[in-house]
Amino acid sequence: MVFRSHMDLALEQARAAGARGEVPVGAVLVSAAGEVLAAAGNRTRELSDPSAHAEMLVIRAACAALGSERLTGCDLFVTLEPCPMCAAAISFARVSRLYYGASDPKSGGVAQGPRVFSHPQAHHAPEVYDGIGAAEAEALLRAFFAGLRSPLSN
Amino acid sequence: MVFRSHMDLALEQARAAGARGEVPVGAVLVSAAGEVLAAAGNRTRELSDPSAHAEMLVIRAACAALGSERLTGCDLFVTLEPCPMCAAAISFARVSRLYYGASDPKSGGVAQGPRVFSHPQAHHAPEVYDGIGAAEAEALLRAFFAGLRSPLSN
Repeated sequence: MVFRSHMDLALEQARAAGARGEVPVGAVLVSAAGEVLAAAGNRTRELSDPSAHAEMLVIRAACAALGSERLTGCDLFVTLEPCPMCAAAISFARVSRLYYGASDPKSGGVAQGPRVFSHPQAHHAPEVYDGIGAAEAEALLRAFFAGLRSPLSN
Repeated sequence: MVFRSHMDLALEQARAAGARGEVPVGAVLVSAAGEVLAAAGNRTRELSDPSAHAEMLVIRAACAALGSERLTGCDLFVTLEPCPMCAAAISFARVSRLYYGASDPKSGGVAQGPRVFSHPQAHHAPEVYDGIGAAEAEALLRAFFAGLRSPLSN
């Protein structure tokens, strides 16, 4: 399935982010024609930028490449439920479909707490499909945070 | 009052943004010592970046200048109530105090709809002071949108 291979690419980005010491989350932005416009993992530590979540990086890169503030018709694949910052950016960019992996009860903003797309202040809501590649995404996150807690880990 | 002069600087940034054809919103980031770390107005059109709200630009600039993802002790002044994207970024950056001007019932994320700081998914909430310079901020926004609606306007 095409959407599974895109999520696999997002998982690769998540693994690469974890290897850089970043929270292992990855995202891929795909055009209406099925072309990968951008792929990225978190870079908040590397860039000293609290906004440098994977979703923000692919949205900004794809918009820059297209010379447009809008990504109408595009799909976003991300390994973890977006936070409210990323959910709002997805709405502003008019992303058509959001596919995500693991749920994020602690910090999510789509199905948790702020539920950004569910208020009239969101002027666009994407179609949302959750749970795709969730087991792999959760395993990556669990291993990363277990490593942070263990003084004997790499 | 110091906080009024910082809001005046944010209003100047908002006016400059409007003159560039951007939605007239401005923001200023001030260190715990009272130093202006960054000042910006919206640049979403110019940069083809839906995340380039004034608040995001000053947070990113101040973090880059300090080499840190966190702005603990810092104050953010912005002419309009932040949207959910900016509110979440303010939370991630651990901004201590948020001063804003006009309320934004249509797209706000602090006192409206998603109320980003009011959920357990927000791991930090700034002190929030609203209504500072609100009349000027509202007048700028009203004039800007009236201009967009009138075919005879500049």
